[in-house]
Amino acid sequence: MKSFRKELWFQVPGRRGFINITHQLREALKESGIREGLLLCNAMHITASVFINDDEPGLHHDYERWLEALAPHAPTDHYHHNRMGEDNGDAHLKRQIMGREVVVAITQGNLDFGPWEQVFYGEFDGQRKKRVLVKIIGE
Amino acid sequence: MKSFRKELWFQVPGRRGFINITHQLREALKESGIREGLLLCNAMHITASVFINDDEPGLHHDYERWLEALAPHAPTDHYHHNRMGEDNGDAHLKRQIMGREVVVAITQGNLDFGPWEQVFYGEFDGQRKKRVLVKIIGE
Amino acid sequence: MKSFRKELWFQVPGRRGFINITHQLREALKESGIREGLLLCNAMHITASVFINDDEPGLHHDYERWLEALAPHAPTDHYHHNRMGEDNGDAHLKRQIMGREVVVAITQGNLDFGPWEQVFYGEFDGQRKKRVLVKIIGE
Repeated sequence: MKSFRKELWFQVPGRRGFINITHQLREALKESGIREGLLLCNAMHITASVFINDDEPGLHHDYERWLEALAPHAPTDHYHHNRMGEDNGDAHLKRQIMGREVVVAITQGNLDFGPWEQVFYGEFDGQRKKRVLVKIIGE
Repeated sequence: MKSFRKELWFQVPGRRGFINITHQLREALKESGIREGLLLCNAMHITASVFINDDEPGLHHDYERWLEALAPHAPTDHYHHNRMGEDNGDAHLKRQIMGREVVVAITQGNLDFGPWEQVFYGEFDGQRKKRVLVKIIGE
Repeated sequence: MKSFRKELWFQVPGRRGFINITHQLREALKESGIREGLLLCNAMHITASVFINDDEPGLHHDYERWLEALAPHAPTDHYHHNRMGEDNGDAHLKRQIMGREVVVAITQGNLDFGPWEQVFYGEFDGQRKKRVLVKIIGE
């Protein structure tokens, strides 16, 4: 069994945003030399997500509006978490909806995806450098 | 390390529905010959889910009503995604609540489940053939 | 490839609660002797979650209030699932938001976590003994 590990770093300029990281996962897979196995990709921070969906700006607008309706950023004093001096209580909730991680099948050296599957980093408390972990096991 | 891959195809007659696919996963596991490892099962389409819960029609009714309240199908022009000519914006949101994938432990040749765990395909934009991926690694 | 399996048991005194289980996962990993691989940790019951977030009581208060707003326990007859004599329809919905499982990278014999990642058992229908499964594969 082989294993491979890589960190990816991102800095989203605003508070929230989505970044397509599919290409970086393909590069990590190529570096690993693994042809059959599983790839785990997870946010290493608890106010961010890694998820799979469509690379379509209208959809990303819909996600942003929907998440803000389900877990609004303001008023920030609505969240007990923010009594510690934070203002990111909403981000911890949004991340639960969108998920921490994805697990992707590796088949014949490729990400084994359906036609529209793309991997995104979802940032809900940005403006600073944050990490995503890629771990691949297989052979 | 052994690896095994199989696609399952489903066509839900209406827009939405839940299908118990536990039996198909057991058959795939038997075909694989793998006795210890991990099984990944994911929707290959981005308006569908694979999730684990109870096989109880009342609960499925509750999920349907709850998801429709959290992310209503209509009015379809509420979703920017639908400006591309689609009408499935809601389905991309519902799928995030229910999740893309499950990872299941394989122990002594069986799906290592608690007493009520059953695996479902969740369709949110049906009436066409769509795929689920099963990938098993182990030995 | 090595594999390791362990069950953890929990009994939450009230209906709902969150328990930090990170230490138990570290112990399971040490017992396994596995240094590179993947760890799966999932609730074996369908009204409970395993998730990763911050160990901060204010945040847990926020989760409790938020989940109760998204899927209220009462009135219990709102849920068709409860017509079977249950009163836990809401718990099956809350668990979908928080998720069934986490997959964690194992690197150099450690849980490969970002600075604030902690693993929690989330109970939504407590007052009885329930199980969490830990499965580790690797070498």
